[in-house]
Amino acid sequence: MEHTNDPLYKIRHSLAHVLAQAVLQIRPDAKLAFGPPIDNGCYYDFLFTEPLTPDNFSDLEKRMRKIIAERQEFKASARSAADAVAHLRKLDQNFKADYCEELISQGEKEIGFYVNGPFEDMCAGPHVEHTGQIPPDCFKIDSIAGAYWRGSEKNPQLSRVYCLAFKNKADLEAYIENRRLAQERDHRKLGKELELFIFSDFVGPGLPLWTPNGTVIREALENLGKEVETRHGYVRVATPHLAKEDLFKTSGHLPYYKDTMFPPMEIEGEANYYLKAMNCPHHHMIFSHRPRSYRELPLRMAEYGTVYRFEPSGTLSGLLRVRSLAMNDAHIYCTIDQLKAELIDTFKLTLDYYTMFRFKDVKVRFSTHDPANKEKFVDNPELWKFSENAVAEVIKELGVDYILGAGEGAFYGPKLDFQAKTLLGREETISTTQLDFAQPLRFNLTYIGQDGAEHRPYVVHRAPLGTHERFIAFLIEHFGGAFPTWMAPLQAAIIPVNDDVMSYAQEVAGLIRRQLMRAEVDTSDNSFNKKIREAVTRKIPNILIIGGKEAEARSVTLRRYCVKEQITMSLDTLMTRLKRCISERIMDNFPDVQVP
Amino acid sequence: MEHTNDPLYKIRHSLAHVLAQAVLQIRPDAKLAFGPPIDNGCYYDFLFTEPLTPDNFSDLEKRMRKIIAERQEFKASARSAADAVAHLRKLDQNFKADYCEELISQGEKEIGFYVNGPFEDMCAGPHVEHTGQIPPDCFKIDSIAGAYWRGSEKNPQLSRVYCLAFKNKADLEAYIENRRLAQERDHRKLGKELELFIFSDFVGPGLPLWTPNGTVIREALENLGKEVETRHGYVRVATPHLAKEDLFKTSGHLPYYKDTMFPPMEIEGEANYYLKAMNCPHHHMIFSHRPRSYRELPLRMAEYGTVYRFEPSGTLSGLLRVRSLAMNDAHIYCTIDQLKAELIDTFKLTLDYYTMFRFKDVKVRFSTHDPANKEKFVDNPELWKFSENAVAEVIKELGVDYILGAGEGAFYGPKLDFQAKTLLGREETISTTQLDFAQPLRFNLTYIGQDGAEHRPYVVHRAPLGTHERFIAFLIEHFGGAFPTWMAPLQAAIIPVNDDVMSYAQEVAGLIRRQLMRAEVDTSDNSFNKKIREAVTRKIPNILIIGGKEAEARSVTLRRYCVKEQITMSLDTLMTRLKRCISERIMDNFPDVQVP
Repeated sequence: MEHTNDPLYKIRHSLAHVLAQAVLQIRPDAKLAFGPPIDNGCYYDFLFTEPLTPDNFSDLEKRMRKIIAERQEFKASARSAADAVAHLRKLDQNFKADYCEELISQGEKEIGFYVNGPFEDMCAGPHVEHTGQIPPDCFKIDSIAGAYWRGSEKNPQLSRVYCLAFKNKADLEAYIENRRLAQERDHRKLGKELELFIFSDFVGPGLPLWTPNGTVIREALENLGKEVETRHGYVRVATPHLAKEDLFKTSGHLPYYKDTMFPPMEIEGEANYYLKAMNCPHHHMIFSHRPRSYRELPLRMAEYGTVYRFEPSGTLSGLLRVRSLAMNDAHIYCTIDQLKAELIDTFKLTLDYYTMFRFKDVKVRFSTHDPANKEKFVDNPELWKFSENAVAEVIKELGVDYILGAGEGAFYGPKLDFQAKTLLGREETISTTQLDFAQPLRFNLTYIGQDGAEHRPYVVHRAPLGTHERFIAFLIEHFGGAFPTWMAPLQAAIIPVNDDVMSYAQEVAGLIRRQLMRAEVDTSDNSFNKKIREAVTRKIPNILIIGGKEAEARSVTLRRYCVKEQITMSLDTLMTRLKRCISERIMDNFPDVQVP
Repeated sequence: MEHTNDPLYKIRHSLAHVLAQAVLQIRPDAKLAFGPPIDNGCYYDFLFTEPLTPDNFSDLEKRMRKIIAERQEFKASARSAADAVAHLRKLDQNFKADYCEELISQGEKEIGFYVNGPFEDMCAGPHVEHTGQIPPDCFKIDSIAGAYWRGSEKNPQLSRVYCLAFKNKADLEAYIENRRLAQERDHRKLGKELELFIFSDFVGPGLPLWTPNGTVIREALENLGKEVETRHGYVRVATPHLAKEDLFKTSGHLPYYKDTMFPPMEIEGEANYYLKAMNCPHHHMIFSHRPRSYRELPLRMAEYGTVYRFEPSGTLSGLLRVRSLAMNDAHIYCTIDQLKAELIDTFKLTLDYYTMFRFKDVKVRFSTHDPANKEKFVDNPELWKFSENAVAEVIKELGVDYILGAGEGAFYGPKLDFQAKTLLGREETISTTQLDFAQPLRFNLTYIGQDGAEHRPYVVHRAPLGTHERFIAFLIEHFGGAFPTWMAPLQAAIIPVNDDVMSYAQEVAGLIRRQLMRAEVDTSDNSFNKKIREAVTRKIPNILIIGGKEAEARSVTLRRYCVKEQITMSLDTLMTRLKRCISERIMDNFPDVQVP
């Protein structure tokens, strides 16, 4: 946590001292290491002879509250460097004494100390005036974990006691609840429970294998992307996953991004082949395979192509950092006059997706070039000025909030990252739009203008849904694993109350499946209640309960995933409802969304 | 052509002599090489001092007819080997004399000759009795090409004169017409003209890039495959295009098929990665990532996955021999009791596709193992017997014609290749079904049976639509490039008769496009007739003509690609018709198929 005069900073910092004082009450021979405030509270590192366990937490919290009730004053003092070391050695606090010596060797003349009640700590502050200023219900000892002195494995192992701390009880509880939800919604945990994807040691790290459930979600997204792009006048292409070295040399990926590409496949007497890390070079080959006329522009070329990027295996994490990425990619080839309209369309399309998926706090990060840095950016001041202005105008016109990332643009043009928050507030960059005036030059892309002369097109790179991997990870967390009917691996779980209605239940399932929707009858020996619980655990959007009454009336009783109320309806009504949920892509996983 | 007593063989063989006799009339110093009958007629190789050109063909044909009219008798005789050489040297026919010496060195004692009229040739026959038995209108000199004596570049270059010859005039003309159509329908030619795919030197040989038009066809096929498979109870998965060496060692692809795989990507300290040449190992990883119950079987796991096979660049040809293959792949995991039903379902599904696409003369090639060859086939007589019987029973039950390929099965089980003919009669293997009892063993695939014990599943590999590359190449030829509305890159070309109706034409296009169908207005400056011609050349299935009458009545006049008759219809009727053509996948590219 940054060192500030923020009241919360002072509370967290002071709590670290209170925690240490309480710990010393029950472990008087504990040696103290560091105890800083952090983003959700504070921690303190100790060396114990008798270990501390979570069983001690509640006793420690009581002791901390008592110290708070004592309104101990925080008093600052200073010692000369030599005095400080001697003082700490006398107290047998050798970690602190060692650190103090290190500070002296760096030229420190005077060392600050804080005393509150019987507790004294080498510390620069700031603190609250007295412990009574710490709300007694704003904190909670959270956990204990191992940590090395100064973070090095060569040093003794310490015990780190974490304490959550917020402004007040409500904030503390909200944080705890939010964290619980986040853990429950962690895409790795839910991905496993709902069987969406797996990793295999035989296949390799960072290379997810999409199981049937996850593939349903991928395909639902892909169909959405294709439909939206068709409506926006895109065409689609399909290109191989590899190419000769020369292609990537022309694009500049080699040698500049060699580290992020898989190593080459060397075919003797022919060429070195590389897996593509980007689709653009392949798309440029399609653009340039024959002369293009201005009449064909804007040409919006889309591909759901898988690209491969080499990331060190230590950095890989679930779907958020992978080596295979299925991108919702497209490249728009356009004239200078069309650029603004194309950017506006790309923005609107992107924001429409976010609205549809109910993402919160969408922000745009607008990254520009640094005119001083001629190495990091294509040296073409005029084109930079023109394109950055075009983007700025578009942002202004659409009235989107944005943050400026000065000097953070791509090598070949300004960049726009769209950031959104999940329901739990985690912020993530989801899509990128980049303007490119360098690659058309490198690949000598041209079109014949109305004037009969050759012109250079602009290229817009855009990926509004990002990659399947990142977007689905985000959606899993955002939805808590409960997908709307149109994306759900199993769209309807049919639960017969007894075996007498089994044949009707199967008939209903058949009816739904013939319409290419996904339904399953629970034929297990489980009790009715267990069947319901299981369908809820699997987060099936529609639970169809079938009893004698339903069989007789040829109806079903529908229980929507997130809604308590049950509705009995005819088969016709059910079929119409399911079809609408799918064709209109209704977000029926949100309780406030009405299904018409 | 095989040496037989077939009358056509005799005609073709005799025609070679007639051709040589005619050639010697106008090139008396020509040296004769070989002149055999071949599958579509015969050829004769000559060494000329003054070259022959196609301008000589009609004169030569006249001379041949004259020889035929002379009813020259074919008289067989024999010379001792030494006499034969001397005779040929005297005639200065040194190619023949050399060949004769070669025969002697192989132990030949007597050499056969045939004389007809003034022409004598070293020849074993058989021939017609006299030239009058050759129908004078059954042949046509076709072409002239270079050829080396005995096929070796080190020998003198000869001129090979090809002559087409059939039983009668009708057969000759049918052959010529069929060949013209085949050339017109060649998928490489049409693929270029209709802009379906390209190859790029920068990307690499055998790696097609699917342009927007071709991608429409791919996606139409893919959607068909997905829909049919969903109806047949398949689930879908998506797996990466590469994996660690170990996976392919377990599957046995390494080292046995190393030559057909791309070379490895070597990641130091981690593993060698290979592009997958098959999807099965990845699918087995998904099957085995957790215990499976008999309740989950049959598990039909499908993927439209691209696999990569290394073929030497010299053998690559259009889409028929490529390095990247998008397979309509699936693996069915089933119990022994389910095997027959699964095979029947796979067969029916495959044959349904063929009926739908109107392929002719579908045949099945049933390849079995060779019990004597323990190296080429898994050594498990009992399983071979069981599986070959199962397949044989299924073939019998379905009453499909089959050819037996004894000893041609796969390493791991019997194989079934489905062959079909294009409209032009070219036969091609399109899909393969293979039974596999070896890989389940190698990967230790198991399921828990009803008895609570572990059992080994069977695996059926199947790809009814084969690969996109091969299947689309076949379809292009079969359809002559004219795709039905549901597959057509452009589904409707709208042709306004003049500019007054342009806005109505655009309105119609917008109406169609809003329904996610593909329509374009021809806004060029071309004449009306040229616009029509162009739409026909592009083989657009629906040409919508819009004149003043249509604009006033808010109708269109439809001209179907393959049908002369035009129909004027309301916009409602048009939309219903287009939608039905697409949703019901009507083969409206065949003139005899009615559109309801």
